[in-house]
Amino acid sequence: MNHDPATLDRAAGGDARRRGPGSSGWATALTRIAPNEVEIRGYPVDELMGRLMFSEGIYLLLRGELPTPSIGKLFTAVLLSSLDHGVTPPSTLAARHVAASGSPLCSAVAAGVLAFGDYHGGDIEAVMRCLQEGISLHHAGVSYEEAARTLLQKHCGSGATPPGFGHRIHTRDPRAARLMQLAHELDLDGEHCRLLRVVERVINAMPGRAQHPLPLNIDGAIAAVCGDLGFGPEIGNGLFIISRVPGLLAHAVEEKLTQTPMRKIDRDAAYYNGPARRRLPETRK
Amino acid sequence: MNHDPATLDRAAGGDARRRGPGSSGWATALTRIAPNEVEIRGYPVDELMGRLMFSEGIYLLLRGELPTPSIGKLFTAVLLSSLDHGVTPPSTLAARHVAASGSPLCSAVAAGVLAFGDYHGGDIEAVMRCLQEGISLHHAGVSYEEAARTLLQKHCGSGATPPGFGHRIHTRDPRAARLMQLAHELDLDGEHCRLLRVVERVINAMPGRAQHPLPLNIDGAIAAVCGDLGFGPEIGNGLFIISRVPGLLAHAVEEKLTQTPMRKIDRDAAYYNGPARRRLPETRK
Amino acid sequence: MNHDPATLDRAAGGDARRRGPGSSGWATALTRIAPNEVEIRGYPVDELMGRLMFSEGIYLLLRGELPTPSIGKLFTAVLLSSLDHGVTPPSTLAARHVAASGSPLCSAVAAGVLAFGDYHGGDIEAVMRCLQEGISLHHAGVSYEEAARTLLQKHCGSGATPPGFGHRIHTRDPRAARLMQLAHELDLDGEHCRLLRVVERVINAMPGRAQHPLPLNIDGAIAAVCGDLGFGPEIGNGLFIISRVPGLLAHAVEEKLTQTPMRKIDRDAAYYNGPARRRLPETRK
Amino acid sequence: MNHDPATLDRAAGGDARRRGPGSSGWATALTRIAPNEVEIRGYPVDELMGRLMFSEGIYLLLRGELPTPSIGKLFTAVLLSSLDHGVTPPSTLAARHVAASGSPLCSAVAAGVLAFGDYHGGDIEAVMRCLQEGISLHHAGVSYEEAARTLLQKHCGSGATPPGFGHRIHTRDPRAARLMQLAHELDLDGEHCRLLRVVERVINAMPGRAQHPLPLNIDGAIAAVCGDLGFGPEIGNGLFIISRVPGLLAHAVEEKLTQTPMRKIDRDAAYYNGPARRRLPETRK
Repeated sequence: MNHDPATLDRAAGGDARRRGPGSSGWATALTRIAPNEVEIRGYPVDELMGRLMFSEGIYLLLRGELPTPSIGKLFTAVLLSSLDHGVTPPSTLAARHVAASGSPLCSAVAAGVLAFGDYHGGDIEAVMRCLQEGISLHHAGVSYEEAARTLLQKHCGSGATPPGFGHRIHTRDPRAARLMQLAHELDLDGEHCRLLRVVERVINAMPGRAQHPLPLNIDGAIAAVCGDLGFGPEIGNGLFIISRVPGLLAHAVEEKLTQTPMRKIDRDAAYYNGPARRRLPETRK
Repeated sequence: MNHDPATLDRAAGGDARRRGPGSSGWATALTRIAPNEVEIRGYPVDELMGRLMFSEGIYLLLRGELPTPSIGKLFTAVLLSSLDHGVTPPSTLAARHVAASGSPLCSAVAAGVLAFGDYHGGDIEAVMRCLQEGISLHHAGVSYEEAARTLLQKHCGSGATPPGFGHRIHTRDPRAARLMQLAHELDLDGEHCRLLRVVERVINAMPGRAQHPLPLNIDGAIAAVCGDLGFGPEIGNGLFIISRVPGLLAHAVEEKLTQTPMRKIDRDAAYYNGPARRRLPETRK
Repeated sequence: MNHDPATLDRAAGGDARRRGPGSSGWATALTRIAPNEVEIRGYPVDELMGRLMFSEGIYLLLRGELPTPSIGKLFTAVLLSSLDHGVTPPSTLAARHVAASGSPLCSAVAAGVLAFGDYHGGDIEAVMRCLQEGISLHHAGVSYEEAARTLLQKHCGSGATPPGFGHRIHTRDPRAARLMQLAHELDLDGEHCRLLRVVERVINAMPGRAQHPLPLNIDGAIAAVCGDLGFGPEIGNGLFIISRVPGLLAHAVEEKLTQTPMRKIDRDAAYYNGPARRRLPETRK
Repeated sequence: MNHDPATLDRAAGGDARRRGPGSSGWATALTRIAPNEVEIRGYPVDELMGRLMFSEGIYLLLRGELPTPSIGKLFTAVLLSSLDHGVTPPSTLAARHVAASGSPLCSAVAAGVLAFGDYHGGDIEAVMRCLQEGISLHHAGVSYEEAARTLLQKHCGSGATPPGFGHRIHTRDPRAARLMQLAHELDLDGEHCRLLRVVERVINAMPGRAQHPLPLNIDGAIAAVCGDLGFGPEIGNGLFIISRVPGLLAHAVEEKLTQTPMRKIDRDAAYYNGPARRRLPETRK
């Protein structure tokens, strides 16, 4: 596994020498297009079709190499974790309002994506930078506990909620717990996960937290897991975008197919009428 | 396989009766949220993590039920097919221009999505509607050949290129060929694929086409394959959005990490410096 | 006044000959940029500053020539008419949801603009095309009354509301009435306005309409007035965008400055606490 | 004139008491809507039509009160200054790429607005904050010269270009010069303009700057002028959005009306074929 906090470009293994001498221009290491040829990171896309998972193709595109089976499985779980979160997030409501006005699907999805701001999905990058800082401290000889305290003092002075913790609705985010556990089972948790767990412990040992625990949220878990997978903070929020776009689309389509244009969208009046709680079939376990 | 051209909502199996009598409000059949619970179409999302592919989760969200293994494999190939197409599409250039101006990733991705207009990704819905029309003719007793001719006369009078055919760059779109072949191998091609093949044959038997064949493109192939999978035209263009968002993101990140802000982006000066053409490892075949 | 339904480009008076012979490239007739020079339609922008109204500059940019004082006054009223419409339109709510998530102002405004769909601002183009069709009929010898009936039958069969009429909230749209009156006072109403008035009369003479009159709305009035000013339908919806952007911005800023991030935005819980109804000072009349 | 750096909300003069006691909800001070009534900051919008300039309506909406004639004139010049800047800005190219793909006008404009990032229009807020900081220093007894030096050291260490200075194309930005001069002529330049002029002098007295002067740009001038008009930094970038939207729209319409869909947009191949340089008619001076 690549624990180097590689960024998209550095991971790509691009080789500028393959370009002729004396030429000018700008390089891209993602996809080569020629008549009747589409190669993603060197692999013909038609060869990938039928052989890779979608998440493996995304990983390949973003990182430059195919994931191992374990990494593929964990990265898939990252993308599944934020697929949808019902009708209340501002992104979903923005997408629904645009869909309700008769604009095309791509306008509705775009409006939803624009709501991934500092308070909604934007925490992933912040947590990644925070953890990198703490890991640097640790490498300089500070204990994880001490690093955690330093980070909390610096970034969350005077009682602010630390990025990656707390949730509007959940007191224990089931997605965060599952993602951290998967990383552990797959032996893919490294320094980012370790430090995040210490931060969680330090936070919840603070006075008054026994009664009001501040849970790790899914942004925090994605940041730690993807940090350990070698994703750089620059791309952190982007993982949430990829994960959530199908959900935004589903809401936009549902709005168009089942509701009256220009209706008043009262999120509190929404009720779920899909299938009742069910378990995966045996063949899926 | 569900050959009914079901739309998102009709496939969902929602049951309004589960709501108490006399209540008012509006229904959503996608996701149920409660404190510490996130259920997508009835399945706890944390239970899906580690067990489903990302594409299977997307299918579940859009259609209401899990795909069979074959359908999952074909739908994965649909999403992989349009993952990225290099630097020349207007969507990619829109995303790069926004990234180059210092805006956040979500703004760059949103701008790219907005370029999925009538001439770029928007053909999927058009082809789906066209094929539905032809299938209705066929069900009314007209041969596929005759239906194909009628459609071409109606939608492409006076030499216009029919939707789903032709490409700026490719004379034989490798992604379209592969997708149609996969649908056939998996025994998932139905009336939409059959009619599209006849349309292709009729077009290329026209005078002058021997020298200048008009190839099936990936929009056309996605439309036929997903039509046979039971997706309605209302969601057609949305499948392209989901497929392409990772590519838009990768270009936005590459732009930010490797280029100067506010630079002039000359698409013709781009050269590919990623890995040379390579084959999948044996274990992936 | 230019009654020719000129479009942006045709009005521009561009002269391709001014370019040297044998050169290739693509033409733009809007703005010339050179080091230390910015000329809009030939006028140095610094010379316009302090001498033109903003609306006159917009008219110049879109049409290629300065408006007469009367046209400038009427076009200003067009832009003022849709400046803002409170918190209930889907565009405003989309902008507020994006602002509430911590995204930058330009993301909030963009999301709002994306909600100008078929049912919200998008009527202007539809009405313009409708009126053009009716005027052609009239020029071919049909009376305005007959043309109005033909349009209504064609576009609003089976009881659909005709574009440009009806409003979610108003039974008499004060902006539409004022705009039509201004066009008349300034002697700038032509065939579009005349036909629209006939359409209004025909609609409200229909059975049952005495009790439930269907009022002309601001989209309809803008379409007629701007059609008579020579704007083509291709730019119709764009006038609404320009007019409404300041309102979207004002709501995004108010949201950021006065509300909690990620709050639930219940449009029915909003109350107005700005200045009470007041009249313009004498000097403004 | 209001020299208080008031922000949108604080300037609004809202009065929460007008709401009945014991009620809950959220306040907006912008626009009151009731059946057949639209009041912007208390003024019926139909009364404004025909009586206000568009820029005065925008000022009223953003600030809560009508501008004086002088302020109206200066604010109009602010909005005119950035109306359009030809085909090279990334915002314009993003809008054109989206228009070329067959998306609606509002998608093209939205994509353009999304390119108003840190390096493009985003400087206004940065300069405003910078100037506020310097003015605070001055109020604490520091000379303008000393404050300017402190700001430059803090924000532009190691040779970075200070926000509000320098331009890709212009060595003397004609719009910036004109705007500063207008503010002076209208007696509306205050501490922000004074400090900005000192900053400009300090920068250009630095070693090597005699040969390579770093000019004040239009972002810097707008920031200083609007700072003196009492606009807060939170709305700074928004003024650029309002100013530039008509230009984005004009490019999107021109692209759709005069160019082939999906064409390659090479900004260097563009040539201007609009009217040659001309002067305003005598009646406009």
